[in-house]
Amino acid sequence: MARDNLSIHLAERPKGDIIPGTTFSQKRTPIPSPADLKDGEILVETLYLSLDPAMRTYLNPGGSYMAPVPIGGIMRGMTVCRVLASKSKRAAAGDFVSGNTGWTEHAVLGEKDFEPTSRFPGLRDPQDMLSVLGPTGVTAWYGMTQIGDPKPGELVVVSGAAGATGSVAGQIAKIRGATVVGIAGSDDKCRWLVEDLGFDVALNYKAADFKNKFKEATKKRIDVYFDNVGGQILDMCLARAKEHARFVECGVISQYNTRDQAGLRNIANVVSLRIHMQGFIIFDQLKHFPQARADLSKWIAEGKLKKNETIIQGGLGKAEQGLVDLYKGINTGKLLVEIKNPNATAPKL
Amino acid sequence: MARDNLSIHLAERPKGDIIPGTTFSQKRTPIPSPADLKDGEILVETLYLSLDPAMRTYLNPGGSYMAPVPIGGIMRGMTVCRVLASKSKRAAAGDFVSGNTGWTEHAVLGEKDFEPTSRFPGLRDPQDMLSVLGPTGVTAWYGMTQIGDPKPGELVVVSGAAGATGSVAGQIAKIRGATVVGIAGSDDKCRWLVEDLGFDVALNYKAADFKNKFKEATKKRIDVYFDNVGGQILDMCLARAKEHARFVECGVISQYNTRDQAGLRNIANVVSLRIHMQGFIIFDQLKHFPQARADLSKWIAEGKLKKNETIIQGGLGKAEQGLVDLYKGINTGKLLVEIKNPNATAPKL
Repeated sequence: MARDNLSIHLAERPKGDIIPGTTFSQKRTPIPSPADLKDGEILVETLYLSLDPAMRTYLNPGGSYMAPVPIGGIMRGMTVCRVLASKSKRAAAGDFVSGNTGWTEHAVLGEKDFEPTSRFPGLRDPQDMLSVLGPTGVTAWYGMTQIGDPKPGELVVVSGAAGATGSVAGQIAKIRGATVVGIAGSDDKCRWLVEDLGFDVALNYKAADFKNKFKEATKKRIDVYFDNVGGQILDMCLARAKEHARFVECGVISQYNTRDQAGLRNIANVVSLRIHMQGFIIFDQLKHFPQARADLSKWIAEGKLKKNETIIQGGLGKAEQGLVDLYKGINTGKLLVEIKNPNATAPKL
Repeated sequence: MARDNLSIHLAERPKGDIIPGTTFSQKRTPIPSPADLKDGEILVETLYLSLDPAMRTYLNPGGSYMAPVPIGGIMRGMTVCRVLASKSKRAAAGDFVSGNTGWTEHAVLGEKDFEPTSRFPGLRDPQDMLSVLGPTGVTAWYGMTQIGDPKPGELVVVSGAAGATGSVAGQIAKIRGATVVGIAGSDDKCRWLVEDLGFDVALNYKAADFKNKFKEATKKRIDVYFDNVGGQILDMCLARAKEHARFVECGVISQYNTRDQAGLRNIANVVSLRIHMQGFIIFDQLKHFPQARADLSKWIAEGKLKKNETIIQGGLGKAEQGLVDLYKGINTGKLLVEIKNPNATAPKL
């Protein structure tokens, strides 16, 4: 029976939340033929798709740090893939590679558009390339070591702490000897942060007594705030900052789906407390990837860093709902869609 | 006729604006006697008092980067003084010195509490120590050269541009070869910025068409924003920033007299545009003073940097109203109170 290729395209720019069945549309086209590969190209089947908070910003007409996905264009996304056929010296059929294929089951990638996973000896599963050794893990490494730079005994607060980046960022702060307070969206996540990952304190921001608990947990005042959420919690951290605090501005997940940005009221503290606030995007920092991955692999091998993934089963068709659920905080650790199980047999083409 | 010493004390912490006749009280006490000086001390008469936007924050119960002025305590402030009597090797009677005397006509200063002006060959008038070579001038130098660091052709926006710090900061950006847009509170100030100081554009933020003019003037997007005001204009600059913009967070004069801080709505741009935002207080940066003053003196001597002072006549009694008027934008350049004209004869004690 002839198989075809499923890909998912942007149909309509959402004004607020993504609307399943409306924002994206599905297309079925023939799987590219190995016979059509040009020199240097590879044909891959995608195994895992990374779902990331920044994706919502790709849908806006003005884009963000990346150009907007055009209407009708394939949705942008990073995957781990298995090579089905290769005209490249960098990968052979059967190898795992990662690349920006977008939301598709199969893709043809040019010589420079993929990264062989064999380069990373610390890798345990192919999907590590999308999580702890992928952009989110490297983001945590960069933000915490290059901007936050906590010293032993300093107080570090991480928001979005149970997410792919936050969970790694908090653990790096612990490795640095800091006291770490995580903020997450459920009691289960908070338990996981403290019991499994070793955070000193974890607070559920949805709890009624959150503000008091936060005040108590930051009595010493905040030296480093690793911000994944923006909005109200950023404002609270500005109010509880210590002099010369570092604010690692990594993401604003609380704000991506709304046009009514919460107003920050404590920004004057940036002056009086001499706060250093630095926004960053990991794709500016490609030169740091090798060092970051070396450190992260080492910490995993030493048992100092635990990885976690929430994997949505059921194939690429589940990606749209998965992205909606990401903003609801469905995931603990990295959120992935399993497009195809890597243990399943590769298709014959 | 026996003269006595006038000093001005904090009587009541203002909740909003300073209330003349209520916030401060006057005291008259005998002038300290030269006979009572200890080794290393000097007796001075104050000539000029510096009025600074940060002063409002000294009056708050929580203070700011400095401890609050206690109720009943002499109001904090920096002055240029003439030495009347000396038991210090660092200054002789008749010398000019600067020091943190507070709001008083006479003071006794310890060995380390003053700075002889004779160390600064670039000095033209003693009051330069309070303006272009004083903390406000050094603040402009530090913020612009060490944080903003504009490159030739970059777009620099300075708010509070006609003030003591802003007017120097904008001129330094011009010296660096940047295009400079100043924002000030009157058409007269704007004319002065363009015609006398060489700013490329100056915009009156009180004008009805300010928002459109600002948009037009920042079409190229902002590389460096030197922020003296906070609030709405900071928010507008976040919206018009270029990628990797530097935000020099020097002051928030729009917010000092209010408890209802304006909410910032564009802070998410810190992430997407990778903005570097750095708050600073010049008193953390004492090691930079010599280099800053060397550069500032040189630029003045070369005619590249123009200084300007607004001097309130009439003695120390005018300081309170002067401080109120500072927040209304009375001054162009540095605002000083002339406590005593330096050309008048020193009193016999």
